[in-house]
This record gives sequence, structure tokens and C-alpha cells, in this order.
Amino acid sequence: MAKLYFRYSAMNAGKSTALIQVAHNYEENDRQVVLFTAAIDDRFGSGLITSRIGPQREARTFDSVLDFYAEIAMMSAISCVLIDEAQFLTPDQVRQLHRAAHLLDIPVICYGIRSDFAGEPFPGSAYLLTLADSLEELKNICSCGRKATMNPRFDARGERIRSGAQVAIEGVVEYRPMCARCFYGGLSR
Amino acid sequence: MAKLYFRYSAMNAGKSTALIQVAHNYEENDRQVVLFTAAIDDRFGSGLITSRIGPQREARTFDSVLDFYAEIAMMSAISCVLIDEAQFLTPDQVRQLHRAAHLLDIPVICYGIRSDFAGEPFPGSAYLLTLADSLEELKNICSCGRKATMNPRFDARGERIRSGAQVAIEGVVEYRPMCARCFYGGLSR
Amino acid sequence: MAKLYFRYSAMNAGKSTALIQVAHNYEENDRQVVLFTAAIDDRFGSGLITSRIGPQREARTFDSVLDFYAEIAMMSAISCVLIDEAQFLTPDQVRQLHRAAHLLDIPVICYGIRSDFAGEPFPGSAYLLTLADSLEELKNICSCGRKATMNPRFDARGERIRSGAQVAIEGVVEYRPMCARCFYGGLSR
Amino acid sequence: MAKLYFRYSAMNAGKSTALIQVAHNYEENDRQVVLFTAAIDDRFGSGLITSRIGPQREARTFDSVLDFYAEIAMMSAISCVLIDEAQFLTPDQVRQLHRAAHLLDIPVICYGIRSDFAGEPFPGSAYLLTLADSLEELKNICSCGRKATMNPRFDARGERIRSGAQVAIEGVVEYRPMCARCFYGGLSR
Repeated sequence: MAKLYFRYSAMNAGKSTALIQVAHNYEENDRQVVLFTAAIDDRFGSGLITSRIGPQREARTFDSVLDFYAEIAMMSAISCVLIDEAQFLTPDQVRQLHRAAHLLDIPVICYGIRSDFAGEPFPGSAYLLTLADSLEELKNICSCGRKATMNPRFDARGERIRSGAQVAIEGVVEYRPMCARCFYGGLSR
Repeated sequence: MAKLYFRYSAMNAGKSTALIQVAHNYEENDRQVVLFTAAIDDRFGSGLITSRIGPQREARTFDSVLDFYAEIAMMSAISCVLIDEAQFLTPDQVRQLHRAAHLLDIPVICYGIRSDFAGEPFPGSAYLLTLADSLEELKNICSCGRKATMNPRFDARGERIRSGAQVAIEGVVEYRPMCARCFYGGLSR
Repeated sequence: MAKLYFRYSAMNAGKSTALIQVAHNYEENDRQVVLFTAAIDDRFGSGLITSRIGPQREARTFDSVLDFYAEIAMMSAISCVLIDEAQFLTPDQVRQLHRAAHLLDIPVICYGIRSDFAGEPFPGSAYLLTLADSLEELKNICSCGRKATMNPRFDARGERIRSGAQVAIEGVVEYRPMCARCFYGGLSR
Repeated sequence: MAKLYFRYSAMNAGKSTALIQVAHNYEENDRQVVLFTAAIDDRFGSGLITSRIGPQREARTFDSVLDFYAEIAMMSAISCVLIDEAQFLTPDQVRQLHRAAHLLDIPVICYGIRSDFAGEPFPGSAYLLTLADSLEELKNICSCGRKATMNPRFDARGERIRSGAQVAIEGVVEYRPMCARCFYGGLSR
């Protein structure tokens, strides 16, 4: 009966905040959760999930070789698995999490963005979007006021970067939530 | 184009957290928001919206006579109206907010619970559910692990209270998020 | 684990079509369903659920005194209860259906509109919106192109009717799906 | 303001029915729509969209080289583009449709399945899931009664087929809507 959830959004919508809230809700019911975040993302320190409105939680980190199914199968008394920065999961790891939810009966809730700075899917996100039992959007706005769905990359001087590797962690570059119309440069007719 | 949103849940799902996050998202885009909470609810001090995971914001309070349409029509440069404890709105106030969203073109996002300790609708919630352009659920769990949708009332000794007034603010009594099966007392066949 | 679902929309969005499709899906899986529609609604003949794109199914009718809980408790081998014109349920009947889903473990899926010609809630819809475990919108468009959420009433000459009884079945009068902005008469500033 | 919609489901949930209903809704408002289906899919005759509950509509067909953006830019007086069997779109075509919605301001509504018989994404579906402004699920049930999300393939004798090409149109083989637990073979602990 457990499900795999993917709660997606553009950058800075409040994914980490929402994850920390869900962890809190389980713990208020005397239930244990386990939190993961990507080892790749050390914006706020390795193994930390940090909400931009304040709260912070320690988390286990995952790299691309962790076997989530084996890991979760060994856990006892866990009521929910919560994963931040889920766009960095590999397709294999998403499949492991899908199996864990359905064969080990433990809910798995993943938070992440869908597309990179060029509008291309993150492989992990593509598999989460394909397999998750529940897709839910957390909303953020573009600077124009419309709902943001894209994540363009900018350099330190605020110039849009249109080529480069899929992964470049914030700090050197900056990502901004943007609607598709602004992302593509405006209305054509 | 603006809409009236109602984001509802059972008790303690994280409504105030979500509201504070949305306010933060608008402000990061250099946009102003206005926050309201019910004057009736002074759990955390009058005019405060408090997240159980930490963050807190001051808010204007509303009573049952505030005319939201007139109020919002006088505001300039406001990009979003955010209302916590929206179950305490009157039906007239919900209609005012609906008109404000559609005639003044300002998004209005309301957070609240749907039903009282007896499973009866709050009048304001019934009108929000009827008129809102977008209904979105924030989830919480019952102590049994299922999704909570009900809000039963308990006394200081943990005894279920089955009669009384619709409004009795937390402190003297306690509300717990509960699934409908537990609320009704369990499976019949 | 069964749930109470309310799938709502403005007029003419395709609720009956969707209901007939769900019945078909269950039956393709060799599962039995039971269909109800309001006795009050004889637009297409008493006890018929008729899709505007063609398909039609016979259905049992409900009036305001049918006890749905008692009725469903006596049914054997039913996998799903499907109810059209659910805005005509009484609050008591919605509570019966809510209990049936959760205590008898049979999914109940209700289709209906939310508000009447004046924008007021149907009592049954208000209770469905308050108690349903899942609220899902079927979309239709206003003549202006925006999403319709309202159901204004017109007379035979196409004049808007602004007062009268909540229930006046189509034929004598006509209902049109309309967005809130058009419903209220247009933008104010 | 127009959006790209992806309405996804497992096999046989009623996608074609829903598409035909939406076309009908637009036409009732004196608005024109254009319908597309995949050239690859001639289950019911080339260029036909057929609901399993009866209704049928002619549609234009798309192959992998059609440029949807150029095509839509040349259309006049079209209020909505409706695409069935959207899992057969190429990633480039999804990007064209995304641009058309946002730069030509015409809503595009795509209906399709997410994963193939092996649980792998269709490339077109992965891009739709990544870029669509709105993701909405049409539900169907597994033979066990749970929600179906997977699409396993069976041969004429009802034997599960676990290898082969991603595309093999119904007739020679059969697809069945299935929940993930049944898809993987059942609960492990």
C-alpha cells in the first residue's frame, strides 16, 4: 500500500522546507523517518537539508552507487524515507526506491527539480516522473509573476549561461525559477 | 487571471509553514505580500503566524466584520494575499476574497482545516471549498499511518470530546489529525 | 483503505462521461459496480446517466430519504459505488457514504457541481467537499476561454436569471459554465 | 498564458474518451480544436481516436518528423491542440509543443502512457513529464483492485512478455493496466 511520491518544483519553491515539515509530522506521531540528500550538493554543508526560511536537519548522503533497496530492506521501524535533491538519483536508484515502496511497503517521498538549466530532464527526475505513484507540484513564481517551471543558470554577473555541464552547484553559478515564456524569451505573436 | 486558492489539511500538517514559505518566495522576487490570521486564534500571540518547525511571521488579524474586498482594493503594490486559519472566515468574507481575486486580479491563498471536531464543515471552509479556483491538500498522517482528514477534539486527559461548540482554541483542548476510519471507530466488516 | 472521492466541475464538463468510463474500467476487470443518479433529474429519462458525447447507462435513482450506508452494507460483491448528480445528496447521505467508504471498505466516487446559479453551495456538495478523501476537478471552459467554475442560470431567451429556487432542472432554464470574472461581470480595475 | 498539459495514465484508463470530451466542450463554446494521434497506432484505423465506451473522432496523424511548432504557427482560429498517444512524440516534438503553448499562446493537451512494458520511460513521455505545466492522472485499476500505474505486455496466450522492442502495437500483443506491486511480483516481506 505504500507509494513512491515525487514532489517537484522549480528552484527555491520550498522543497527542503516541505521535507523537514513531513519529517516533523511523522516524528510528532512517534514514527521514525530517514532523511537523505545528495552528496553532490554541499551548498549548506555535507549531509544537511536546509530550508531557506530557517529550519535545518542532518541527513544521510547518497552517491550514485548506494543501493537504496538493500539499504531500506535492512532498516527496521522506519515509517518513511525522505529524499532531497532527488534529481541526482540514478535511474537504477529510482527503480530501487519504487520497488522498496511497493515490495517493502515503506513510503518513499522524493523532492527535486525536473529539468536542468537547458530544459533537459535530469535522468533521475525522468524516472521519478515515470514511476512515481503520486506527482505533486510545489509552486514558485517567475519574476514576471507567472508560475515558474524552468531553472535557467546565470553567472556571477547575472548573465544567462546557455551551455555547460548539467550539474554545476549553486555558488559559482546561480539558478532562478522562471516561467516557460520568459525562459524562451517572450511571446512570438 | 488571479485565482482564489484553498490549501486545506487536517490539523498540524504544516499550513503555517507553507504560508510562510510562499511569503518568502514572493519577497525573494521583490514582491510584497500581506498576511492575515484569525483574531480568534491567539495560541501563539495575537497577530502571529507560527510554524511548528520554527519560523514565525507577524500578520494582520481579521475578525468577522472586516471587509476584505474593500481592504484589498485600497492596497497598492500587493502581489499576493495570504490568509491563515481561513476556516474562521465568514461566508461573506470568502465571497469578498473570491471577488478580489477575480475583479482586482490579486491572488488570494487561504490555508485552513475543512471540518470541526464533529466532522461538520466550518462555514468559511465550506465556501472556500465551493468557490476556490484551486483546491490543494497538505497531507498529514493519522497515528495509524493512514492519511489524516479529520480533526477530533480531546481534553487534557486525552479523552475524546464528542459535543460542544465548534470553536474551542487549542490549549484547553487538543485536536489530533486522524483518518476517517479511526475517527468513526474502526472497520465494520 | 477505500476512499470517498468527489470529482467536481462546472456544468457540462463531462462528469457523466467520466463516470461511465470508470464503470467500464471496473467491468473490464470483471468487477461489479453500482450506479446511482438523482431522482430529481429526469433530463434524459429517470434512472439514466447520459454522456453528451453519446454513451448512456441505466442507474438506480436516489431521493432524499435513501439510507446509503444501509443500502451498501447489504450489497455483496460490489467493488465501487458511482453517484452522478451528487450535488443533490443530503448532508446525511454524504456522511453515510463517507462511513461506507471507510467502514465497509468500498470506494465511493461522486460526481457533481459545487455551486448553484447564485454561487451558493449545494448542501450535499459542501459536505462532499468537506469529507471527501480526494477532491479532483474536471475542467471546462468559459465562453471567454478561461476555466469555468460557476454555473449561472439563463432563461429561454438567454437572459441571466439572478433569483429563484436553488433547484430548477435544465429544460425550462439553461445553465452555462462560466469563469468567476465573467460571472461577476468583469474586471474592476 | 496558455499551458502544456500532460494527462497520463496506465493502459485503458479512458484517455481517448477524455480527449473526445474536451474537444466536444470546446466545440460547444463555438471554438475550434485540432486533434492528432500517432501514425504508428492503427489499432482502430489510421487517423481515428476511439473511445472504448463508444465515441470516435477523426484526427490528423503525426509521425516522427512533423514539426508541431511550424504547424501550429500556421493555424488560425484554433483554441486548443489535442494529442492522443502522446508517448510516441519525439523529445523534439515535445519541445515544439511546449514552445507553441508558451510563445503562440495556444493550449496543448497531450494524453499518453508513461512507461513501456518493462517500466522504462517512453522518450516523449519523459519530456512531457519534464516540461508540462500541468500533470494530471487519469486512473485505472489493477486486477487486484489497487491503482494501476504500469503497462506489462502479454502474448496471445496470456503469458507475460519480459523482453522485446519498446513499441509493439496491441493486437499481436496485449497490455494490461497493473499496479507496481503486481508488476514486480508481489510483496517481499
